[in-house]
Amino acid sequence: MNAKPISRFPVPELKDLPADIRERIEAVQSKTGFVPNVFLALAHRPAEWRAFVSYHDALMDKDPGGAVTLSKAEREMIVVATSGANQCQYCVVAHGAILRLRARNPLIADQVAVNYRKADITPRQRAMLDFAMQVALESHTVADADFEGLRAQGFSDEDLWDIAAIAAFFAMSNRLANVTSMRPNDEFYLLGRIAKQK
Amino acid sequence: MNAKPISRFPVPELKDLPADIRERIEAVQSKTGFVPNVFLALAHRPAEWRAFVSYHDALMDKDPGGAVTLSKAEREMIVVATSGANQCQYCVVAHGAILRLRARNPLIADQVAVNYRKADITPRQRAMLDFAMQVALESHTVADADFEGLRAQGFSDEDLWDIAAIAAFFAMSNRLANVTSMRPNDEFYLLGRIAKQK
Amino acid sequence: MNAKPISRFPVPELKDLPADIRERIEAVQSKTGFVPNVFLALAHRPAEWRAFVSYHDALMDKDPGGAVTLSKAEREMIVVATSGANQCQYCVVAHGAILRLRARNPLIADQVAVNYRKADITPRQRAMLDFAMQVALESHTVADADFEGLRAQGFSDEDLWDIAAIAAFFAMSNRLANVTSMRPNDEFYLLGRIAKQK
Amino acid sequence: MNAKPISRFPVPELKDLPADIRERIEAVQSKTGFVPNVFLALAHRPAEWRAFVSYHDALMDKDPGGAVTLSKAEREMIVVATSGANQCQYCVVAHGAILRLRARNPLIADQVAVNYRKADITPRQRAMLDFAMQVALESHTVADADFEGLRAQGFSDEDLWDIAAIAAFFAMSNRLANVTSMRPNDEFYLLGRIAKQK
Amino acid sequence: MNAKPISRFPVPELKDLPADIRERIEAVQSKTGFVPNVFLALAHRPAEWRAFVSYHDALMDKDPGGAVTLSKAEREMIVVATSGANQCQYCVVAHGAILRLRARNPLIADQVAVNYRKADITPRQRAMLDFAMQVALESHTVADADFEGLRAQGFSDEDLWDIAAIAAFFAMSNRLANVTSMRPNDEFYLLGRIAKQK
Amino acid sequence: MNAKPISRFPVPELKDLPADIRERIEAVQSKTGFVPNVFLALAHRPAEWRAFVSYHDALMDKDPGGAVTLSKAEREMIVVATSGANQCQYCVVAHGAILRLRARNPLIADQVAVNYRKADITPRQRAMLDFAMQVALESHTVADADFEGLRAQGFSDEDLWDIAAIAAFFAMSNRLANVTSMRPNDEFYLLGRIAKQK
Repeated sequence: MNAKPISRFPVPELKDLPADIRERIEAVQSKTGFVPNVFLALAHRPAEWRAFVSYHDALMDKDPGGAVTLSKAEREMIVVATSGANQCQYCVVAHGAILRLRARNPLIADQVAVNYRKADITPRQRAMLDFAMQVALESHTVADADFEGLRAQGFSDEDLWDIAAIAAFFAMSNRLANVTSMRPNDEFYLLGRIAKQK
Repeated sequence: MNAKPISRFPVPELKDLPADIRERIEAVQSKTGFVPNVFLALAHRPAEWRAFVSYHDALMDKDPGGAVTLSKAEREMIVVATSGANQCQYCVVAHGAILRLRARNPLIADQVAVNYRKADITPRQRAMLDFAMQVALESHTVADADFEGLRAQGFSDEDLWDIAAIAAFFAMSNRLANVTSMRPNDEFYLLGRIAKQK
Repeated sequence: MNAKPISRFPVPELKDLPADIRERIEAVQSKTGFVPNVFLALAHRPAEWRAFVSYHDALMDKDPGGAVTLSKAEREMIVVATSGANQCQYCVVAHGAILRLRARNPLIADQVAVNYRKADITPRQRAMLDFAMQVALESHTVADADFEGLRAQGFSDEDLWDIAAIAAFFAMSNRLANVTSMRPNDEFYLLGRIAKQK
Repeated sequence: MNAKPISRFPVPELKDLPADIRERIEAVQSKTGFVPNVFLALAHRPAEWRAFVSYHDALMDKDPGGAVTLSKAEREMIVVATSGANQCQYCVVAHGAILRLRARNPLIADQVAVNYRKADITPRQRAMLDFAMQVALESHTVADADFEGLRAQGFSDEDLWDIAAIAAFFAMSNRLANVTSMRPNDEFYLLGRIAKQK
Repeated sequence: MNAKPISRFPVPELKDLPADIRERIEAVQSKTGFVPNVFLALAHRPAEWRAFVSYHDALMDKDPGGAVTLSKAEREMIVVATSGANQCQYCVVAHGAILRLRARNPLIADQVAVNYRKADITPRQRAMLDFAMQVALESHTVADADFEGLRAQGFSDEDLWDIAAIAAFFAMSNRLANVTSMRPNDEFYLLGRIAKQK
Repeated sequence: MNAKPISRFPVPELKDLPADIRERIEAVQSKTGFVPNVFLALAHRPAEWRAFVSYHDALMDKDPGGAVTLSKAEREMIVVATSGANQCQYCVVAHGAILRLRARNPLIADQVAVNYRKADITPRQRAMLDFAMQVALESHTVADADFEGLRAQGFSDEDLWDIAAIAAFFAMSNRLANVTSMRPNDEFYLLGRIAKQK
């Protein structure tokens, strides 16, 4: 149990939440073993919670297939790299854990968070993160030439939408976490760091 | 009719959209007289569209009452100021129009978009926009002292959540519009500029 | 009549100004229908006023011909784009109006002010504005290669002097307007927005 | 004689210039012993030259008296500090020399150019330069509170206009020198560095 | 064993190094269980290695006492915070491990690396890191007022030298690691994360 | 003699320093004619002094030969350019003097300090300074492609280490000088400016 506040704003108790929200949170808890604090901190506003979670799932819970080539691990790389640039503690720590799990790589999250240019990634992943950082930090400069360069790396237009939309969604998410002073659960820090996790 | 593309990505036709999305768009159209391009451009991804629109409405379609003191016009000011900083053409032009209408002021949107510090606004609105810009541009620095200063200006904590969440939501929205090269409808440019609009 | 102050400094009355300045201002007034506030605000310093106005006219009141290929509308584009980057409310609003009139295009000024990269302009105009922004924001980096690239776009060296000098002149002008809190006349906001202006 | 080009653009010969310009340049030459390159480089455009020089003189050739308290040396400090920030080689070298002469101080120009915060200046001069740098680098933030703070340091409003206008004029001048690759005369480098100059 | 290169430059073998360097490295190895890559990567230049290591030790291996109040853990906090700002993967990962060990806190390093303003630190440590970041990112602004503020927090002048010198030393160190593409040993990532390390 | 303080911290007297430090300082003094203030200001911490001086000498006192092609004057160019960017008064003034002496060029130091892109240097020296500035200001972006470009200019890998290490060492040195408010000796300002120095 963590005695430190997880948000600058009031945090509802699980039992007081609308049924649909509570059920979703309990499903996460039974799978992960704990309730990630983002679910409780944002539940202060149920309507916003529902929009946030369904937007998140539409972008992150998607497997490659058809025009989509990004893996779930690659989606998490985008989150970790852009959240590092935005100095979002919650997102780097929580999604860093998810990235380690999805990539089955205990080193990758810290590498990507500090300087993705030095991370153990493929040239295609490097191009993906360069584009995600452009969207995160100077989206007003995105131009046709950027799209052409990325298509030449084998990204479909659906992939490019995904990369941009994930960077954009976490531009929002990082700001919400920074303003609410959202605290990462202690559990995230170690998750995925030890080979045989189980 | 506008011959220029409104998005870098495929734009669905209204008739091909899921019924719930089509109905919502038709409701906007019958009220406004045209379909704002954001509704069509984002409909390329129906699940994301639904989350985007319901998130937007939860933050923007809210009247003062109880702990909430922000007016709808003030919410639009936040959008215009932060979208100007992010160089988002769609959001400045479209929400500039809405701001003119909501504030019944034909000058306010251009003033806020270029330099809100010189706009015809109250000191309280100035403090609101200073905070919104901090969230938009350097949310990692938001601290207790910022909250205390804003409460001293008469903002409730619910107001502060609203200001921050609107700035955060449009951090996402600006990036989506910039990446998709979303084109503002020609109609927005003149809307609200002439006193007796009717 | 506008009750809000148009400058942080004393503003002379038209009748108290030296004859040459008064005559010039009356000529503008009879043509435009009102006295743009910049003429009154800067008249606090007559010697500087004369230098400012004659410098402005030497750069802006010039038609294409010979080695000069820039149109008057293109000169105004440079003003609007760089003034947007410098967050100069007076210059964006006033020269935005002039740009709409000169280009006979009610949309162009807002597009250029917010993000010229997304404006309805030609590739040559895009190159012109890229160079103007380089002069406005990081002139210390201008190099031979920049000149060669622009000549390849069909710009003469006289054009390049003009682009740079306009960006430089408004670097000054934007700072004067920002420091004096120069207020744009209300009339500018609507000018050139309605097709049959007359 | 200096064989290196003094401008990227054509440089007229003294004998080919309009009489008023030639006479003014010869007057400077007879006083200084050489023709500062700015006079020749800008003479490529006589009308702009006249406006530039008369604007410069209106701001820089002014002695304290009445509401004006800035000395000529202090005016040059503003030029050197802001030109250093804009990385303008011509202006730092040429006006550095003038500053040394006017202040009768061989060290002051290098100190102010590199980091005015560490220069041998008075607290009032420090406040003057802080304001000049704000005008040079972020004039959109200038506010009432800045003016009040400076008045408390004993600056009149006429002084504040002067400080701001000098910083603004050299914002233009630095950009012109950077774009034309204006070369400082070799003579400037040593001027004012040796005690008994005479 | 790690097959990835640890430096962009040639890396000497331990047996080929001068005796004093080899002995020092073996001492670290026998204490830590592995040779941190910085010792091998920098040994490409023995004279620089010796200066680097002795400078490092003079600043980092110092216990509180007399005028010195900084703990070794606090010194490592400075390294981790400034190295995060400089995006130095080696320094964040390696010194993050040392910070966890010295502070006996498995969470602190990730918190400080991403956004020290949200870390579980005391107000005095916050002031220490604010100053260290000022030295790392804009040392030209350090002024008397900064020193007075820090002394009021209980820092001695010796402490302030230490904070500044550590931030300055790692300004160098981060750049060396970034340029050489120095790779952190895999061992560092997990070090100090599990309570009963032993 | 200079009555102004040369450091914000206590400055030891020469006679009170450890013998090795005193001897080294006296050797400099007998060669140069005065004691550069950096030797006294840093001697507040003898162990750090020794590391600093030996690091400095390993990087700066090196003549071309073998894989090393950088001259001593070129090493000083790196110091002056990066110290200008870091606004370090001591380093620009002191190493500016050394650069003038080593390059036997009275103009070069001021040119490089203000804007090295406009200095009288060779294309190879320009490439050297571009790389040094990248290391000084954004070392996290240094990549393979940068190394390849520089090798194509004829730099050996040992040269590239030297350029980077000098920029890194003075990243430290500039910060130490800025924080201690280290004052350049008056003698430096004129050194090397007059042809027959002797």
